[in-house]
Amino acid sequence: MASAPNQLDLSVDVVELTSTLVDFPSQSRAEAAIADAVEQALSGYSHLEVLRDGNTVVARTNLGRSERVVIAGHLDTVPSSGNDRAILIAQGGSVPVADVDGNQTASEDRLYGLGSCDMKGGVAVALLLAAHQTAPSRDVTYIFYDCEEIEERFNGLKRISENHPDWIKSDFAVLMEPSNGVVEGGCQGTMRVEIRVSGRRAHTARSWMGENAIHGLSSILQTLENYEAAKVLIDGLEYREGLQAVDVCGGVAGNVVPDSACITINYRFAPNKSAEDALAHLQQVFVGYQVEVVDYAEGALPGLSRPAAQEFIQSVVGKPQPKFGWTDVARFSALGIPAVNFGPGFAALAHAPNEYVPVAQLHSTLSAMQNWLSK
Amino acid sequence: MASAPNQLDLSVDVVELTSTLVDFPSQSRAEAAIADAVEQALSGYSHLEVLRDGNTVVARTNLGRSERVVIAGHLDTVPSSGNDRAILIAQGGSVPVADVDGNQTASEDRLYGLGSCDMKGGVAVALLLAAHQTAPSRDVTYIFYDCEEIEERFNGLKRISENHPDWIKSDFAVLMEPSNGVVEGGCQGTMRVEIRVSGRRAHTARSWMGENAIHGLSSILQTLENYEAAKVLIDGLEYREGLQAVDVCGGVAGNVVPDSACITINYRFAPNKSAEDALAHLQQVFVGYQVEVVDYAEGALPGLSRPAAQEFIQSVVGKPQPKFGWTDVARFSALGIPAVNFGPGFAALAHAPNEYVPVAQLHSTLSAMQNWLSK
Repeated sequence: MASAPNQLDLSVDVVELTSTLVDFPSQSRAEAAIADAVEQALSGYSHLEVLRDGNTVVARTNLGRSERVVIAGHLDTVPSSGNDRAILIAQGGSVPVADVDGNQTASEDRLYGLGSCDMKGGVAVALLLAAHQTAPSRDVTYIFYDCEEIEERFNGLKRISENHPDWIKSDFAVLMEPSNGVVEGGCQGTMRVEIRVSGRRAHTARSWMGENAIHGLSSILQTLENYEAAKVLIDGLEYREGLQAVDVCGGVAGNVVPDSACITINYRFAPNKSAEDALAHLQQVFVGYQVEVVDYAEGALPGLSRPAAQEFIQSVVGKPQPKFGWTDVARFSALGIPAVNFGPGFAALAHAPNEYVPVAQLHSTLSAMQNWLSK
Repeated sequence: MASAPNQLDLSVDVVELTSTLVDFPSQSRAEAAIADAVEQALSGYSHLEVLRDGNTVVARTNLGRSERVVIAGHLDTVPSSGNDRAILIAQGGSVPVADVDGNQTASEDRLYGLGSCDMKGGVAVALLLAAHQTAPSRDVTYIFYDCEEIEERFNGLKRISENHPDWIKSDFAVLMEPSNGVVEGGCQGTMRVEIRVSGRRAHTARSWMGENAIHGLSSILQTLENYEAAKVLIDGLEYREGLQAVDVCGGVAGNVVPDSACITINYRFAPNKSAEDALAHLQQVFVGYQVEVVDYAEGALPGLSRPAAQEFIQSVVGKPQPKFGWTDVARFSALGIPAVNFGPGFAALAHAPNEYVPVAQLHSTLSAMQNWLSK
């Protein structure tokens, strides 16, 4: 097997560039080599000012345009599932692992490999825009950041928003996360809560002397079973909420009536709710129980009615969709910057061993972005 | 602190002998020293034939009586809770740890210490009977066995019933397990089963694409909540059954709709049911679910109507009670030998750090047994 690449040639096409990026090992916290290559490649273009903080590289045009937009993508990947190297499969060719629909044969040209979907395809598009859009119709700040796939405290976008607020300042942001090549607006919020149920311990041979905490979960589970998640319409996008138990545990020993049981519940809420609203809702749903917040992240309103967003949407093909999962779009939103997801690949394939990006989407997203930055 | 004893003097009274036995370290699988001392002490009595298998010591009279009874107790204890040494607390004295009712002061004379309740008090009674009942009214086989407190495969009583069936052969057995100084007849059976619920994994942000296995536990928990345990009358004893969840688990990750959840349920069933009956009942209760047996032990019928049992009951004070927990009584029962629990101490204190035996019960059980073996 050839050794890993150590530099990037931005004169190649988007498929070849994505392939090279996939071949660059860049697991979270080990992005130095890929960040060096990005910095070096972009430094060769005189229309760009190149900045760096840790393993985050920022490149921006300074053309005095009336509007500035951010185009961002993360450089890191999750750990390898043995798919470290890019493999191009032409239509009809055998895929390395059955695809998302269980097919063994590709029905389209695809690029397989770690990060192909999440999100080196998007990064390749952004790098080519940075290199070749020498006179974009709006000033652009390109952000290639580290540590998106791990704990939030390491997140490169978070870090530069704190260390260098001016690097991120803009009127609109496009996060090139996989969105199936269509615009996904906003993102839902997420909150995890824990509910503990207490009982009284006893030997199971004398169970009438105890009170079973696991049995005490019954009404919480019934509530979850019967819960009808809201569908919330914002800017023409329908957000479907969800309320799901994600963990349950209880039990002391095989002959003991347990005195404690615990359930963890994940609430995904539409972006018109604050974390406070979300908690109030959960307290109402689980009235009589102590609802303990484990963690949360507020969503992001789609903001599609803003002028910068409108122009973008008109430049790209397809009807905007709501984003259900949480992405760094919420980080822009929290800074008052309307932001959308727009990138090649299916979000559902992120982190999967059979991750791939459709070649056609690499081309179509690149050309949509070129189109937008030209008019 | 004085060093541990290394021999047993059977000329002392039952309280002092219990105290010495408590001071003998004898955690399961480390009973060699105590078994040696028991063997040596009993070998001095010419009316006894002394036998040994591993750390189980058997002593029996061979007087040609028409009836043979077994009097049995285990030598081992659970690991220490810092209560290795016997402490005698007189009425009014401060107890080392609050007692079972939360009192700090003893309302009776008590002997505290590891194994005082489970079951060196009973062993002391049996040793004194062996030494001093030189001409009992029925032949007696005394069994002092090892490894009762750990996995069944190590159990000394099980081992000798397999290696030396003649050592255990008898018309009636008294297991001197703590029974609050009254006769406890039979014991309930126990069965542990597991029920797995499946679902379909999905991201919680798109929960409608999945099927939550934890939510799927809801109807099982409802069944458990609403279950009315039977009360079964046998030989005048009322056995209260129980059906209790003892473990529940499920969950993949904080953002994943789980596709699998599992609940473990312990069924305590009256001794008129076989394991097969018990399973059939559970399959009926949880109809539609696959009920997987983890382990079980059948109960033991009290057998109080048998002549040998009747004579015993008439010799001792107090109304017989049902035994709810499982004990080695069931092992005798399986061999066709009616057996009861009868010993000093409260079963509920077994394995507790504040374990103790009431001094009065040491005396009363000894004298009841002497009475029975004399007539």
